[in-house]
Amino acid sequence: MIDSVKEALARASARFVERFYAGDIAGAAEVYTEDARILPPGADMITGKPAIAEFWAGAAEAFGIKSITLETVVVEQQGADSACEIGRFSLSGEEGMLDQGKYVVVWKRDADGEWRWDWDIWNSSQS
Amino acid sequence: MIDSVKEALARASARFVERFYAGDIAGAAEVYTEDARILPPGADMITGKPAIAEFWAGAAEAFGIKSITLETVVVEQQGADSACEIGRFSLSGEEGMLDQGKYVVVWKRDADGEWRWDWDIWNSSQS
Repeated sequence: MIDSVKEALARASARFVERFYAGDIAGAAEVYTEDARILPPGADMITGKPAIAEFWAGAAEAFGIKSITLETVVVEQQGADSACEIGRFSLSGEEGMLDQGKYVVVWKRDADGEWRWDWDIWNSSQS
Repeated sequence: MIDSVKEALARASARFVERFYAGDIAGAAEVYTEDARILPPGADMITGKPAIAEFWAGAAEAFGIKSITLETVVVEQQGADSACEIGRFSLSGEEGMLDQGKYVVVWKRDADGEWRWDWDIWNSSQS
């Protein structure tokens, strides 16, 4: 996997984290493809960028999530326009850490050349 | 994605289900690559087929899982030897359903030509 792709993925994820921290959830959701799917714990699959933005706005509000950190564990490119990533996340509120866990993201290189999250599934590592 | 690949994936998943139901957890774990990674809810990532077999044996015992059903929602091939799948699962014990949820599996075509689960992450859809 070439370094320029790794850097593009890292930049896209960093933008999600920055926009989320700034309270700009719609901006954060720009990391997703138009037809993206998220598979959140405790809920059914959610499809499409608008519904995903709504999910994250609701989650930020309901759980008091102020910041998210993402750390890539392994990423593998598959074909020219697709890559899979395993990573670790943590969610923090004003009083400190709310949850930590792990995720798999399936990345797609979009029509505009940007790498975006097409599938996103995660779970808590806390028992 | 060609039908013969879809059929090969379906056969591999069906074998996991059959072996698990027969109580042959080591046989079920043959669906994983040697270096596979699973990301179970409530625990850290587990790496390698022997450790994964041990995880499933422990989970079957601890939660009384007798049978697992798997249903593919979408599967996309990426490159010659890789595919990604979203699916739904349910876990049942002697008294009925224990849990239901969703998963993402990253498939690899192994050195022997068989398709196997290389990454496997899931979570419950129950709130």
